[in-house]
Amino acid sequence: MGASVEQLAVNTIRVLAADATANANSGHPGAPMGMAPVAHVLFSKFMRFNPKNPKWLNRDRFVLSNGHACALIYTLLHLYGYAVTLEDLKRFRQVDSITPGHPEAHDTPGIEVTTGPLGQGISNAVGLAIAQAHTAATFNKPGFDLVDNYTYVFLGDGCLQEGVSSEACSLAGHLQLGNLIAIWDDNHITIDGDTNVSFTEDVLKRYESYGWQVLTVSDGDHDLEGVAAAIKKAQEVKDKPTIIKLTTTIGFGSKLQGTHSVHGSPLKADDIKQLKQAFGFNPEQSFVVPQEVYDFCNKVAAEGASKEQEWNNLLAKYAEQYKEEYEDLIRRQKGDLPEGWEKHLPVYTPSDPAIASRKLSENILNKIFSVIPELMGGSADLTGSNLTLAKGTVDFQPPSTGLGDYSGRYIRYGVREHGMGAIMNGLAAYGTVIPYSGTFLNFVSYAAGAVRLSALSQVRVIWVATHDSIGLGEDGPTHQPIETLAHFRALPNCMVWRPADGNETSAAYYVALTSKHTPSIIALSRQNLPQLENSTVEHAIKGGYVVHEQEGADITLISTGSEVGICVDTIKELAKQNIKARVVSLPCWEVFDAQSKDYRLSVLPDGIPSLSVEVMSTLGWERYAHEQFGLNRFGASGPYKDVYKKFEFTPEGIAKRAVATVNFWKDVPNIRSPINRAFEQLI
Amino acid sequence: MGASVEQLAVNTIRVLAADATANANSGHPGAPMGMAPVAHVLFSKFMRFNPKNPKWLNRDRFVLSNGHACALIYTLLHLYGYAVTLEDLKRFRQVDSITPGHPEAHDTPGIEVTTGPLGQGISNAVGLAIAQAHTAATFNKPGFDLVDNYTYVFLGDGCLQEGVSSEACSLAGHLQLGNLIAIWDDNHITIDGDTNVSFTEDVLKRYESYGWQVLTVSDGDHDLEGVAAAIKKAQEVKDKPTIIKLTTTIGFGSKLQGTHSVHGSPLKADDIKQLKQAFGFNPEQSFVVPQEVYDFCNKVAAEGASKEQEWNNLLAKYAEQYKEEYEDLIRRQKGDLPEGWEKHLPVYTPSDPAIASRKLSENILNKIFSVIPELMGGSADLTGSNLTLAKGTVDFQPPSTGLGDYSGRYIRYGVREHGMGAIMNGLAAYGTVIPYSGTFLNFVSYAAGAVRLSALSQVRVIWVATHDSIGLGEDGPTHQPIETLAHFRALPNCMVWRPADGNETSAAYYVALTSKHTPSIIALSRQNLPQLENSTVEHAIKGGYVVHEQEGADITLISTGSEVGICVDTIKELAKQNIKARVVSLPCWEVFDAQSKDYRLSVLPDGIPSLSVEVMSTLGWERYAHEQFGLNRFGASGPYKDVYKKFEFTPEGIAKRAVATVNFWKDVPNIRSPINRAFEQLI
Repeated sequence: MGASVEQLAVNTIRVLAADATANANSGHPGAPMGMAPVAHVLFSKFMRFNPKNPKWLNRDRFVLSNGHACALIYTLLHLYGYAVTLEDLKRFRQVDSITPGHPEAHDTPGIEVTTGPLGQGISNAVGLAIAQAHTAATFNKPGFDLVDNYTYVFLGDGCLQEGVSSEACSLAGHLQLGNLIAIWDDNHITIDGDTNVSFTEDVLKRYESYGWQVLTVSDGDHDLEGVAAAIKKAQEVKDKPTIIKLTTTIGFGSKLQGTHSVHGSPLKADDIKQLKQAFGFNPEQSFVVPQEVYDFCNKVAAEGASKEQEWNNLLAKYAEQYKEEYEDLIRRQKGDLPEGWEKHLPVYTPSDPAIASRKLSENILNKIFSVIPELMGGSADLTGSNLTLAKGTVDFQPPSTGLGDYSGRYIRYGVREHGMGAIMNGLAAYGTVIPYSGTFLNFVSYAAGAVRLSALSQVRVIWVATHDSIGLGEDGPTHQPIETLAHFRALPNCMVWRPADGNETSAAYYVALTSKHTPSIIALSRQNLPQLENSTVEHAIKGGYVVHEQEGADITLISTGSEVGICVDTIKELAKQNIKARVVSLPCWEVFDAQSKDYRLSVLPDGIPSLSVEVMSTLGWERYAHEQFGLNRFGASGPYKDVYKKFEFTPEGIAKRAVATVNFWKDVPNIRSPINRAFEQLI
Repeated sequence: MGASVEQLAVNTIRVLAADATANANSGHPGAPMGMAPVAHVLFSKFMRFNPKNPKWLNRDRFVLSNGHACALIYTLLHLYGYAVTLEDLKRFRQVDSITPGHPEAHDTPGIEVTTGPLGQGISNAVGLAIAQAHTAATFNKPGFDLVDNYTYVFLGDGCLQEGVSSEACSLAGHLQLGNLIAIWDDNHITIDGDTNVSFTEDVLKRYESYGWQVLTVSDGDHDLEGVAAAIKKAQEVKDKPTIIKLTTTIGFGSKLQGTHSVHGSPLKADDIKQLKQAFGFNPEQSFVVPQEVYDFCNKVAAEGASKEQEWNNLLAKYAEQYKEEYEDLIRRQKGDLPEGWEKHLPVYTPSDPAIASRKLSENILNKIFSVIPELMGGSADLTGSNLTLAKGTVDFQPPSTGLGDYSGRYIRYGVREHGMGAIMNGLAAYGTVIPYSGTFLNFVSYAAGAVRLSALSQVRVIWVATHDSIGLGEDGPTHQPIETLAHFRALPNCMVWRPADGNETSAAYYVALTSKHTPSIIALSRQNLPQLENSTVEHAIKGGYVVHEQEGADITLISTGSEVGICVDTIKELAKQNIKARVVSLPCWEVFDAQSKDYRLSVLPDGIPSLSVEVMSTLGWERYAHEQFGLNRFGASGPYKDVYKKFEFTPEGIAKRAVATVNFWKDVPNIRSPINRAFEQLI
């Protein structure tokens, strides 16, 4: 295995990346061409992987945080024998290909996390590294280093500029994640030109301040040995993550190398020709891989396969000695929960006292946290407010801090919501833990970029989003969500729950935990909520149900969370005016929409008008209710009852609008339920 | 003015903050009590301000980034004679008071920016400092240092952990903003307890890496002289922002000082009593200010007033020598635009070629940038994609970089969307510039926390949000917004524009620029859009209008942006099936909703069914259309025409759904326009 095949492998990556982007007439050739040497060294000499089983638990994780450089990873996946063909490379950036414009974890074998939005990948990697450390501390035994993989990340200047990466990397330093190795493509180029127009900070000094090991390779274009030495040194330091500053030439080999012209546009035809000529490729041919490169890569892949076989042997021995742990590990990887876990969900009757739903959530966590060992909790520095810490939980902390250990299951994220969201995506992607975390509902918005990727990449992540409305009271408009539920209800594949009482809160957790491919946001109240008649877990897991039925009703009141109880109180108020009201609770639209049309029409029937009641933006409620009572303005600071009163979210205020609704619709014959639609939506 | 009155003033702040939070039975006494010494030193010895004119241009700006500590700033405003009374302090955190739970700029005289959501204030301060440097470079003349104020910020550990502050502070270092002075309340306490559970990075080293001067005061509880010396040193360094690490005891004077118990809960009655006793106050009385403290503060305020008088004299002389600049400066502070500026907005006719709306936006900027000198542009490293750089614009850069100067009007934000949003809020709050900035629409979400505060604090900030849909094509689902418009349409006081052609784009800019108290997001296409019949600036500034009228129409197609043209093309397709369609463009809901009901009904009349067409989440479209065609799933990577075809956003695909709509509604007599509502929404 001489230097020449190595160099040829490097250049093959460059040429394929240039071909793929040119063929698509779209994409980013620059970073793949610049990072080809480090990619080659990493994949051929360090990465532990078996292309035939991309889900092998103890594989090293590779994250391309600068996801726009995906021609690089697709090329590598092809060369090393993953299920990515040359045809797939030719279909780069085409509709319904497995080689989309940015890497998508659920589409392509070998892609660990969905990247492209900058700063996310490196933050996911922190989550992957936490999950590794935790899984190792939980399952490894003397003589059984079952889990000891590294997490490698490539990232560019853009990732380093994004705040989300600052948050995650500061925490990674605190957590002493020695298994995390990041390689920064220091090419001095971003879309606006030279990085010196906006990015002149001393990056390595910053990472040192976070507690990382920092290394430098000054000639990333040619110095393969230097690259290997740096990665080796990174592996050796066990109590610090490492960042390697790798100076490269963007678009290496192009006539425009080193300029931002090669960042986001394919190379011109003549440029590709000279590139191929210079690298000893036939300039008239495209998508050609020299056989010796395939041979080289196949050999590496075969070594990986045999490493997995060794590991499987180890696992088989482990299964004998540690049956319980073995079965737990296997179960976790399937995404199944422990049998019977759901019996531990609390249930309530109407005679139980009124309880804040954040407290109901805490009750659930106290019951299920020990039953579902893969749960890993946390909060963005609001533990006492979010009530996310189950009794007796140990912190996930480096043992040297004396504050916990790596088998601990509660992460102190600090005031870092976006980092927390991105880390949770990494935790979920690892395959052995289910993350949940708390913040105020209003500040889930800080993490919008990460939540979107939870949904797109189909991971099971749970946000415990307390202080869910003007009901938080005194903290005022800066903290009171108005637009937040509409925002996340509009996000595909994201469940937004706003439970009204204890059983609904249990239902929210039930569906969130059993939905393997969908993230959830559970919006919870600060104020106490009564336990409702007719609320059961079985009803609520349908996303919507009738809380109060009434023969010959004049109106349906539809509500969520803290307002359902007020709607129930409104029934009497309306009875005084001879108006009969039925009440519907709709804690999760996404789940309700998935029910049969018959069921939905039984909840929201034809023939009577309806009024939605929710103390925030009415946007979207038109989908379920003929009229909408909400808050299309910012809230107010004050004791919560005063705030509710100011905005008329009282039985009297609701009744007033219910009367207006009944009057407005009384002359309309055959009122149609909004459930009826002219055509089905695309899915 | 001896030490005793100074100490008394410090303790008065502490006692008032304790009283205000105890009286409200809510709030955060800890930070105000800990930061009372530095607040006293800053306000009495450094801050330039006149409480009688909180809008004086050359006042120093004070930003309380740890906004939860607002009892501190309310107390200071009261003591120094702003229009904040003792009664107001007693109404702390009560409905409709001017002392809400977190500081709100539009509510309270003396509050510069709205803070509380952590990390925002320090980032706003970077914007205030940029605006100061720019205004100075633009208006100062030899002998006329008209603008030379400082921006002071208090911030806590939480602000330092948030990524938004990392982004803004990295840029502040690059920009060498010597007028920015931040004081970090290093009290080692956050809500989760000691900062060592999650925040062990070396903060000062990090700020050094950004290019800041870093200073330390180790006894912030007592060392008033040390505090003063540090602030003086900060003022002296002209080419670096400064951060002062000030070690304090949270809740100083409380029995629970130094613990997180005093962070977010009022002191107990007996604790307040001992506090007052220890500080020489009557333990039985509340809200008492010793007269000598008032006298002391009044004297400081009087000195401030006379400084403003001197400045006014200087301004009067300036008016004589530099009439034009003077008038420009006065105009800017009123928020008025230069007379006749709107004549420079491009107008188009249907015979003009199809142009991408991002390009139409660039055409506008090229026309108006020189006419409206207060415009300050920028982009989060997507200048060439957002097309936000008007021809010939100089960068806002430190002169030493050789890349521009402080009179430059284009900010290279780097890949820092959240920081950019928060900086724009600060720029707008300064009073002499109007900021706009570009990123992809999808990544405005990264800045959601800042956009929300733009809306709440009522500042004129413009997002040039290009690549506004699946129409961006190959970059794929990671970059294609689905939920984004719904999100920001649900945000109160935020205009979301999605113009369909040249005249609508001009209209969007017209309304955005003339709305002094409302931020705007202008969603713009990557792909070319035809110039529409009946589209005029006058029509489009109503937020919605009829693009194509038709006698006896069977259906109204309602659309925005790139889909309006496709709807127009659908008319012919439907005519083949003997269906008459009218087409409505609805580029801005917020503005359309503000039109008279008669007008809205003329656009969306009773009697015919309607279908909305927009290539993203349908959420909220039920408000305007009986049926909705949209994309309630993630997009796809591919050439944009293929992607549109995949999801059937073609004349054929729209016609299919229009037919279904007509059929579905044909048996309904007297179809009601969704404009008709049973009652008015609260505003």
